[in-house]
Amino acid sequence: MSDSVGVVATQRAVLTQDGPLELESGAVLPEVEVAFETYGVLSPDRDNAVFVCHALTGDAHAAGWHEGAHRPGWWDNLIGPGKAVDTDRFFVVSANLLGGCSGTTGPLSIDPRTGRPYGPDFPALDMADLVGVHRRLLDHLGIERLHAAVGGSLGGMQVLEWALEEPDRIDRAVLVAASSRLTTENIAFSSVARTAILEDPDYRDGRYGEHGVTPRHGLKVARMLAHITYVSEASLADKFGHARDSHGSAKRLGADFEVEHYLQHQGNSFLERFDALSYLHLTRPMDYFDPFTEHPRIRPSTRFHLLSFDSDWRFPTSHSLRIRDQLAARGVRVEHTEVASPWGHDSFLLEPPGYHDLVRAALA
Amino acid sequence: MSDSVGVVATQRAVLTQDGPLELESGAVLPEVEVAFETYGVLSPDRDNAVFVCHALTGDAHAAGWHEGAHRPGWWDNLIGPGKAVDTDRFFVVSANLLGGCSGTTGPLSIDPRTGRPYGPDFPALDMADLVGVHRRLLDHLGIERLHAAVGGSLGGMQVLEWALEEPDRIDRAVLVAASSRLTTENIAFSSVARTAILEDPDYRDGRYGEHGVTPRHGLKVARMLAHITYVSEASLADKFGHARDSHGSAKRLGADFEVEHYLQHQGNSFLERFDALSYLHLTRPMDYFDPFTEHPRIRPSTRFHLLSFDSDWRFPTSHSLRIRDQLAARGVRVEHTEVASPWGHDSFLLEPPGYHDLVRAALA
Repeated sequence: MSDSVGVVATQRAVLTQDGPLELESGAVLPEVEVAFETYGVLSPDRDNAVFVCHALTGDAHAAGWHEGAHRPGWWDNLIGPGKAVDTDRFFVVSANLLGGCSGTTGPLSIDPRTGRPYGPDFPALDMADLVGVHRRLLDHLGIERLHAAVGGSLGGMQVLEWALEEPDRIDRAVLVAASSRLTTENIAFSSVARTAILEDPDYRDGRYGEHGVTPRHGLKVARMLAHITYVSEASLADKFGHARDSHGSAKRLGADFEVEHYLQHQGNSFLERFDALSYLHLTRPMDYFDPFTEHPRIRPSTRFHLLSFDSDWRFPTSHSLRIRDQLAARGVRVEHTEVASPWGHDSFLLEPPGYHDLVRAALA
Repeated sequence: MSDSVGVVATQRAVLTQDGPLELESGAVLPEVEVAFETYGVLSPDRDNAVFVCHALTGDAHAAGWHEGAHRPGWWDNLIGPGKAVDTDRFFVVSANLLGGCSGTTGPLSIDPRTGRPYGPDFPALDMADLVGVHRRLLDHLGIERLHAAVGGSLGGMQVLEWALEEPDRIDRAVLVAASSRLTTENIAFSSVARTAILEDPDYRDGRYGEHGVTPRHGLKVARMLAHITYVSEASLADKFGHARDSHGSAKRLGADFEVEHYLQHQGNSFLERFDALSYLHLTRPMDYFDPFTEHPRIRPSTRFHLLSFDSDWRFPTSHSLRIRDQLAARGVRVEHTEVASPWGHDSFLLEPPGYHDLVRAALA
């Protein structure tokens, strides 16, 4: 653990400094609490802050170790002393998303107006709403400008939205395997996953909590399906091939091939850490995301570094090239690098050769 | 309807000429009924028969019109007077698959040993079992040799299995968008679809029929997911783009984009025509299919014509090339053509330019 930021605790703050949070839809959240972690030390000039945005099912715990935990934060290989996001130099902030289920206000939170959980009444979210909470958190921490904002997948989409909303607040943006507009097929997969949840008999119109059940079947299927899109066809073949439990003619309908057991494990373990309503609320902002249309004339002063992975078929390089072209057409400084990696979209969580060095260079 | 085979009716036969059907697993079906259709006239020499094998969710009704129907058989554009599979020349036989739910013995059938539907006790099937019923049907019809066997997707896989099991019975084989071994990713998608059914609370260990319910949520999700793999990313984008019902900030969790409504329709309409246990039993033989390993030394006298579509990402051209290489290595006559088509795997049901002419030529 010598190269880790060590033991960290998730902090919480109630962000009421600007009153209730009005969402893009017009709905109002009277009170927003945010769960966040910080690593490193904020400089006296407050000019070394790096904001890390997590992906769909991430949380505030990006680096270091929680007391007694068996694994570090989800981006611990990237964030720490001497690492690409160097906590000897930077003050790193990582916050759980609005709508999530890991400490920040979301569908499981109590609506102070009713004294009951929001449940299905939690309002639909926009990418700008997710970013709005990050903005408030920065204000709360007294940080005016960011040295950099970094995010992978949905995290990168938040960074893009943020840079277009506050064009002078982020000096450097690193978007890894991100997208500025999902394809129709992306939306289709996302829609099947949501249907699995919404039509699970145990969804109960979103009031499953009040009935003491969860739409675990639907949420599991949603995760299994999504997981296939996070990895590459070649990596699945290399890892599992056609290995199976049964032999000869003793075939079965249930899980038999190793890849099936792997997906079962992915789906089942997801149920222990994620909520179905959060899944619904956090996938939707991606489907609707179209920031270059919504902010037609904004020209951020941010310097953009885009990274994509050659085996990513969820948000392939074409998505990053679209971002590059849209930014370049506005005269924004932007660079893109395609990184060779066998692991598909999930490469942003791993260490394919060259990747972390590119992030380090982008923050220099 | 002048270019159609006209009004046809599905016939049924009980195939008991060889006694009970023993399956590859060792399980026995005491009685097998098969639903089939025929088009055209069997020649006096019985040498003009063409067997058509349907895909996963097809049925015996491949061509012509059922009394009062609103649409013809599923391959009516290919089969008929003067068409690629010319019913003025050929006697065409099309049979519903064993394990299906459209007339041939399957999980919904009565097990004569118990007087109750097989339900979850229906035995697991192998590709050889599906073909075994086709073989019995041909015997029943008194046809010794086939002029040709034709099939798309799972249909093509049956034809390949058949040619390896009876290497001198099929003169010509046309395999369209078929595979001789699924990829790990293929199996993964199939497994998620089955999980959606098997873990639907209404599946009830497969005894849903006795409880008056069906695992409709799981079956719908399975179909929606599978459907995405049947079409190309480009065709989804061309057809639906990002069109949606809502405007501006009035976003929602449920179906909004046109592609979502389309998938909902695909899923819901599937529930009216297909059974969940049949879906389980007919997807599994594809996952396990590996005929070149199971028949290591067989060299069919069949002449093979393989077709694949350049936008098919379910069974892309690489699958057909593998079949070609395996057959060629055994000295079997085999040709492969990749057909340009924008519509992905489902192209085998459509008419991309050149496709039907290639089938016609293969049968000449």
